[in-house]
Amino acid sequence: MRVLIVFAHPEPHSFGHALLDRGVETLRGQGHEVQVSDLYAMGFNPVASGADFTERRFPDALQYDREQKQASQKHTFAPDIQAELDKLLWCDQLILQFPLWWFSVPAILKGWIDRVFVNGTVYGAGGRRFDRGGLQGRRAMLAITTGCEARMMAPDGLLGERDVILWHLHHGVFGYVGLQVQAPFMAWNIQYTDAEARAAYLDAYAERLRTLADAPVLPMHRLDEFGPNWRLKPEVAPRTVGHRHVAIGQATGEGA
Amino acid sequence: MRVLIVFAHPEPHSFGHALLDRGVETLRGQGHEVQVSDLYAMGFNPVASGADFTERRFPDALQYDREQKQASQKHTFAPDIQAELDKLLWCDQLILQFPLWWFSVPAILKGWIDRVFVNGTVYGAGGRRFDRGGLQGRRAMLAITTGCEARMMAPDGLLGERDVILWHLHHGVFGYVGLQVQAPFMAWNIQYTDAEARAAYLDAYAERLRTLADAPVLPMHRLDEFGPNWRLKPEVAPRTVGHRHVAIGQATGEGA
Repeated sequence: MRVLIVFAHPEPHSFGHALLDRGVETLRGQGHEVQVSDLYAMGFNPVASGADFTERRFPDALQYDREQKQASQKHTFAPDIQAELDKLLWCDQLILQFPLWWFSVPAILKGWIDRVFVNGTVYGAGGRRFDRGGLQGRRAMLAITTGCEARMMAPDGLLGERDVILWHLHHGVFGYVGLQVQAPFMAWNIQYTDAEARAAYLDAYAERLRTLADAPVLPMHRLDEFGPNWRLKPEVAPRTVGHRHVAIGQATGEGA
Repeated sequence: MRVLIVFAHPEPHSFGHALLDRGVETLRGQGHEVQVSDLYAMGFNPVASGADFTERRFPDALQYDREQKQASQKHTFAPDIQAELDKLLWCDQLILQFPLWWFSVPAILKGWIDRVFVNGTVYGAGGRRFDRGGLQGRRAMLAITTGCEARMMAPDGLLGERDVILWHLHHGVFGYVGLQVQAPFMAWNIQYTDAEARAAYLDAYAERLRTLADAPVLPMHRLDEFGPNWRLKPEVAPRTVGHRHVAIGQATGEGA
């Protein structure tokens, strides 16, 4: 297996970094090939701009995803994007590891997604998204360290349901480009956790990575379960937290 | 009313920028005071790091939110953070305006949240979050331009339910710090929209801003609706997409 771990944490002496090291060691110990993009260590630039392309199709006004499409055909991405894109296309298994900041990834990792998940390669170019996305056949997992307690992230918990919180990443990033979404690994409340509990999380992560093939896969609808109006066909039972059937005439949130 | 608009778009000639200009003009025409943080124009740095503090409480290993807490007391934020924090605390009404990238904000705007929504001021310091958050009594709205069709963002639509997609921003950012969350303004499918439809969106946005006080407010649970176990009290009916009661023994996603 070829594994790409994209890691975002500002502190090399953090528990997050220890979790990264344990993950790499475990995967290599199993005979897998591993590459790591340590975004803080690389000084990765997260800000998408016109400088991301060595040639511009529309030099007067930036249309970012249309420039991505041309750059996919002409191989005219800036070198830092091309290097990350090469790693992404090399891997069978993607892991994004990060501390949960504001229910999401740190900005430096959001920028990695914005700049590296390029139109024309990773998705797009003839409706290639979801189960027809450019990364279909590969798998992806979030590995998250949190400052909150597990019991707060629950359907009746203070922060709400885990899969609602992570929908924008699971469905909007991984699912959108065709990646199979594995259940996330969560290390809870790290700031208030003692050395013993931290060691137990490192062991649990190693065990998860040794048995990655068995990790539960989150449900995702196929494109052919939606009609030409982009709505779930009436006969398809919704299987995700983001989907439900609406009665005719019921408000859908559109146009608000 | 004092309005802060935080704007993230890489292209000054975009529809997004026209929407910003129309918004500012409309609000000022109504007699409101307006400040704009145009993050791309400012060259805003979105990457949280130890350099965000002019003094460090824990110089050996960065604990970002604990440093924020000290900097809130000692006024030792880096100047670019302090300037944004001053604007944030000045406003009654916050608007984040951006193109939807990967079901979320562009990285440069995520970094504005990561660095400016500081522990010890905006939240924290004695359990101040949600309806006891540091920004309670103020209001906030997302103003979003999209590349997708409205009918795709629906409970039975390809992308899923709007309020599930935006939960991490509405609940995890605005709600968490005590901001009242107004229904978002959405300008759909802008890339494939003609001049007439764009003009109609500009007019609709102006109308929304003229009637902001009447904008629907999204439901949010109060802290006292949760028990000491951080779970919704059994007698409280869930009112948001991220919350539901779970039966005893039912899986909650915890510990996955």
